[in-house]
Amino acid sequence: MSGNTLGTLFAVTNFGESHGPAIGCVIDGCPPGMMLCEADIQFNLDRRRPGSNSFVTQRQEADRVEILSGVYEGRTTGAPMALLIRNADQRSADYGDIAQSFRPGHADYTYWRKYGLRDPRGGGRASARLTAPTVAAGAIAKKWLREQFGTVFHACVTQVGDLRLGFEGWEYVERNPFFAPQADVSALESYMTALRKTGDSCGARLRAVAQCVPAGLGEPLYDRLDADIAHALMGLNAVKGVEIGDGFASAAHLGSQHGDLLQPALDGGVAFASNHDGGVLGGISTGQDIEVGVAFKPTSSILIARPSMDERGNAVEVVTKGRHDPCVGLRAAPIVEALLALVVMDHALRQRGQCGQVPGPIPAWS
Amino acid sequence: MSGNTLGTLFAVTNFGESHGPAIGCVIDGCPPGMMLCEADIQFNLDRRRPGSNSFVTQRQEADRVEILSGVYEGRTTGAPMALLIRNADQRSADYGDIAQSFRPGHADYTYWRKYGLRDPRGGGRASARLTAPTVAAGAIAKKWLREQFGTVFHACVTQVGDLRLGFEGWEYVERNPFFAPQADVSALESYMTALRKTGDSCGARLRAVAQCVPAGLGEPLYDRLDADIAHALMGLNAVKGVEIGDGFASAAHLGSQHGDLLQPALDGGVAFASNHDGGVLGGISTGQDIEVGVAFKPTSSILIARPSMDERGNAVEVVTKGRHDPCVGLRAAPIVEALLALVVMDHALRQRGQCGQVPGPIPAWS
Amino acid sequence: MSGNTLGTLFAVTNFGESHGPAIGCVIDGCPPGMMLCEADIQFNLDRRRPGSNSFVTQRQEADRVEILSGVYEGRTTGAPMALLIRNADQRSADYGDIAQSFRPGHADYTYWRKYGLRDPRGGGRASARLTAPTVAAGAIAKKWLREQFGTVFHACVTQVGDLRLGFEGWEYVERNPFFAPQADVSALESYMTALRKTGDSCGARLRAVAQCVPAGLGEPLYDRLDADIAHALMGLNAVKGVEIGDGFASAAHLGSQHGDLLQPALDGGVAFASNHDGGVLGGISTGQDIEVGVAFKPTSSILIARPSMDERGNAVEVVTKGRHDPCVGLRAAPIVEALLALVVMDHALRQRGQCGQVPGPIPAWS
Amino acid sequence: MSGNTLGTLFAVTNFGESHGPAIGCVIDGCPPGMMLCEADIQFNLDRRRPGSNSFVTQRQEADRVEILSGVYEGRTTGAPMALLIRNADQRSADYGDIAQSFRPGHADYTYWRKYGLRDPRGGGRASARLTAPTVAAGAIAKKWLREQFGTVFHACVTQVGDLRLGFEGWEYVERNPFFAPQADVSALESYMTALRKTGDSCGARLRAVAQCVPAGLGEPLYDRLDADIAHALMGLNAVKGVEIGDGFASAAHLGSQHGDLLQPALDGGVAFASNHDGGVLGGISTGQDIEVGVAFKPTSSILIARPSMDERGNAVEVVTKGRHDPCVGLRAAPIVEALLALVVMDHALRQRGQCGQVPGPIPAWS
Repeated sequence: MSGNTLGTLFAVTNFGESHGPAIGCVIDGCPPGMMLCEADIQFNLDRRRPGSNSFVTQRQEADRVEILSGVYEGRTTGAPMALLIRNADQRSADYGDIAQSFRPGHADYTYWRKYGLRDPRGGGRASARLTAPTVAAGAIAKKWLREQFGTVFHACVTQVGDLRLGFEGWEYVERNPFFAPQADVSALESYMTALRKTGDSCGARLRAVAQCVPAGLGEPLYDRLDADIAHALMGLNAVKGVEIGDGFASAAHLGSQHGDLLQPALDGGVAFASNHDGGVLGGISTGQDIEVGVAFKPTSSILIARPSMDERGNAVEVVTKGRHDPCVGLRAAPIVEALLALVVMDHALRQRGQCGQVPGPIPAWS
Repeated sequence: MSGNTLGTLFAVTNFGESHGPAIGCVIDGCPPGMMLCEADIQFNLDRRRPGSNSFVTQRQEADRVEILSGVYEGRTTGAPMALLIRNADQRSADYGDIAQSFRPGHADYTYWRKYGLRDPRGGGRASARLTAPTVAAGAIAKKWLREQFGTVFHACVTQVGDLRLGFEGWEYVERNPFFAPQADVSALESYMTALRKTGDSCGARLRAVAQCVPAGLGEPLYDRLDADIAHALMGLNAVKGVEIGDGFASAAHLGSQHGDLLQPALDGGVAFASNHDGGVLGGISTGQDIEVGVAFKPTSSILIARPSMDERGNAVEVVTKGRHDPCVGLRAAPIVEALLALVVMDHALRQRGQCGQVPGPIPAWS
Repeated sequence: MSGNTLGTLFAVTNFGESHGPAIGCVIDGCPPGMMLCEADIQFNLDRRRPGSNSFVTQRQEADRVEILSGVYEGRTTGAPMALLIRNADQRSADYGDIAQSFRPGHADYTYWRKYGLRDPRGGGRASARLTAPTVAAGAIAKKWLREQFGTVFHACVTQVGDLRLGFEGWEYVERNPFFAPQADVSALESYMTALRKTGDSCGARLRAVAQCVPAGLGEPLYDRLDADIAHALMGLNAVKGVEIGDGFASAAHLGSQHGDLLQPALDGGVAFASNHDGGVLGGISTGQDIEVGVAFKPTSSILIARPSMDERGNAVEVVTKGRHDPCVGLRAAPIVEALLALVVMDHALRQRGQCGQVPGPIPAWS
Repeated sequence: MSGNTLGTLFAVTNFGESHGPAIGCVIDGCPPGMMLCEADIQFNLDRRRPGSNSFVTQRQEADRVEILSGVYEGRTTGAPMALLIRNADQRSADYGDIAQSFRPGHADYTYWRKYGLRDPRGGGRASARLTAPTVAAGAIAKKWLREQFGTVFHACVTQVGDLRLGFEGWEYVERNPFFAPQADVSALESYMTALRKTGDSCGARLRAVAQCVPAGLGEPLYDRLDADIAHALMGLNAVKGVEIGDGFASAAHLGSQHGDLLQPALDGGVAFASNHDGGVLGGISTGQDIEVGVAFKPTSSILIARPSMDERGNAVEVVTKGRHDPCVGLRAAPIVEALLALVVMDHALRQRGQCGQVPGPIPAWS
């Protein structure tokens, strides 16, 4: 299967470069009959868009998505859906001086080694801009899952550089430009303002949750639900770590403490006394909330000069001008939600393919 | 593609249950002409085998691998290789009393929800025993990569429960039954002895490294090398977190600190001043060491009684008798190596498929 | 995806060589809960088995299939099913003298070119013996489809060499050793007896039909149902042509004559006035019978001496001794049925994966 | 894998409907570094375009292809290439009156059964217009194969309705609007003129040849080269039969007559005395010409009134107005070439992925 495709039955094939004519994706395998228009997708794209506040890249992109196929009279037909986003703002000149040099921490070097050539304009295919089609595809998965099972997705930042953010509630996430789960983000604003003055960048951690997820999604080995979640998220630019449930903290746990106790629920189903495993057991969803943690490294394009090398093997000094996010994690919440939705969607279709029905979600621990 | 297959060009399809007649795998896509015999595989299987010391499950399995196909006169033919391991020791009676109950933290519940029925004998398909075919397949990948590129793989435990183990050197790993990178493992022995007495289990962390990895392996989006590594490792029993390079610590880094500086090397190639990114940039290998961290949760089968539920919705008490590892992470090093090797192998073949040649590794930072 | 796997959701991975230790397959994605035992499979294998009459190869193979996994207490669990058939009769000596020579019309040469080496024992992987695992997997697909939709599969020979066989009824097919749809097969017996005396071989044509096939199976482009049928059947040893419905005869048709008229049926559904299109329109099943025609070339291993070449480029003379079918098509009916069933099965699962339900079959034209 | 994708390593994902905003495809896995511009693709598209003579549909489509990604400074980068063709001429009104009726022989009925709804505009996704992206992708495969191995592709009509066309030479094919391999096409013109007056349509047969194909391409089972060719061609609109080499005629052959004799060639390689097997033995290319025959049924949209049914189960009469090809086979030669090229391309990449090198073609029989 091609390397730029995500999913088996709900398969998203991504294309484009940051400063080429357009970016987009083709989604094959969408269930037919779902109401869908461009506004359903645009809402999610707008959440991801740069330029929405002073702490992210000022590149102005209208990022209008166009549905080229697969929808007729407002409904999905089951045929492939091509989504197109034209690249309106292409200031290639900003990048001309680094075309032959390798930015430390950037994909410049590896693309050049792999392919023997690379598209240096705005990072080419390695640009975070390529997450827009992923967000667009994720919007369709989210809509279908919500309509079928009531599944909803949330994501927020929990750490920016060395500043940890307490979780106060999902309702705050859309009220500030950082996707921070807090009523007061002044500390974060101060942190980012100080960072911006240094020309440096910083990393971040995010938390993502899927609620009302059907039980039974996943495979015994290899294509486990958590494995595919890890694949999707580690495949996102700048991500260096993924954990499910208690994640790395589980290493220090005892079995008697970690195992989520099952108890009969009033409705005849099951209630779990806790969710240390983050909604996945043996690679298959329990019906509890899926809990995911993700670590982002700092943006590699910074305004501080660094020694490096060019394609001819010469020592050079690299300074990245142009528009860059000082913390790529600050814009990542909608992308993480989308990727999580794409994985759940694909496994929901796989489940009904093999087993004929999809077991319903169960109430989360309360 | 089927859910129990790992890899695209070097594709491993795993089958079997813990107490069925046999376990094994079929490997499709192996390059032809490589010398291969069962001893090449058996060595790795023996490293994984239970019963080799008093701190792991005492189940005795000869675990003799048989090559059923794909090898002629000692060489791989390019045809699929079926590897078979008979299940010699099947004491199903040990598990009879928990056949209808759900062990907390175990896949019992999710398999039952997904399929409507499950094979309860020894954990069925969810048993860690199913990692044996993965190790067998990984042995073939390791051999080919070593012969082609000099690639070697290492893994060790770095934390057991809340006991952290300092790294003293790879040479110690095979000298103790824990895959601990230390000369003196008496503290770890004491820890495990005390744990065993409680009937409880604990989690662990492992580190894995691939050295002399070709550059240029991976894909721009989705099937990135690090994404496929995360997929493979999160697909392993009990794993709850995966990180590449500095991983979660990257979240607190500044860009000026994290970016690995490139400098011209004496041989005309590149030298990196550090390896915070763990050998992967933009989803593609740099040629540096690939550094991976993995977190394991505690074994869910413990000797301590816990409240739970059965298939009929009754409240029950569950105690797992039988033979279980108190810390599944202690036997995981050969499995983690194997999974890492399978991913690198698959991407090496994909690279030469698309690009025709595979760029050589570069020396690690020294 | 690996080249020795057939199917996307019901995925069959085949392994083995004619004279290696064993042949078999792994079936991933089987729906759980179906009653299944080895006898269900063995029946189909026995139909394919060599040595059942004097007109096919006299190689004696018990061909006992063993289910290694994926079945618990007589039901499929949803986990991969490995099917194993040991090779009991391995008279390699028969083939020793042709180990370095290329038989005209045989895969000897192409395997050697592709892989640089080959397993010459009994044709190695190119042997028709490798169709046994396909038949075994097909038996499972046939059972599931029959239970779910009432689908049944038939195949018969319609031509052997230049002898055309009229179709008298499916009931005759199992009453003679040729899968001929005729009450009296004496002409065919005479033909084969005469052929055998010459040491030569001949080709054949087969017809296969699937009845009570659900409507709606297939994809708009590329993975159309007819395309996947053609793929499966052209992937069978010695097949040189595949046609659907009226097939090649359609080229001479007028549109007014070929198009199958639709008319309202008494039950509120549709009735077709004819089935020139063989049950597939636009790549998707109509619910009518699927009609397939297949052409087999003559067996390439014959007892007549022919000039050829060896691996060193020397001119040689080749005579194939040993046990060979003079007409491989005479044993192919169960294999063709199996392949057709595997394709329909896969698309039935894909259909309910994407669309949630599988439309029922419609009565065939009467 | 998604159903609208063709190929494993050189993977073409097709999207669009006849009268939607656009059609196109994404090609993932193209080797980097090949010179490519839109003119390389446009040339092939123009050959397929409707309206080029009075015997095909008069729909006027500029069919300008736009490369949206994957090319930088005139070279392929190895990233996915999206090709876009806007639908300029959308006269939906022509089709309004048949929106709820099913045309006999058309995909109308099966799409409606599969998805529960359908896009009736111009045949929607079932339109032959969707072959344009396939031709565009094939142009890229053809260019790469020609540059790497000197491979060239030809296709021509050999039968139109019941009129058989003798083969006089490939050089004539581009000199007439029918892709007929004859100097004088007046008989064919008369045939088509007469057919047009009746408002009817007719079927056709085509022959396609690939010359200078590398040896060793294909897989032992299932994904054989001939199987993938059959899959690709049977996946094309209106195709009802595919044969390789002597195809259906092989059924009447004797083994002594059919087997292509090998003999040492002057260059140290092999020379075949004939090519009955059409360049494929055991599913793997020999290096000889690949010979393919394809049968097309008559176009289902005809101007003659026929009884049919509508979505509500009412008996109706259907007449297709608008612009339709009376013989879809007359425009199919460039499409058949493209599909054949896509299969060879994919297997060439698979071959070097697994085996590291691609054996060269051998001279055809002369």
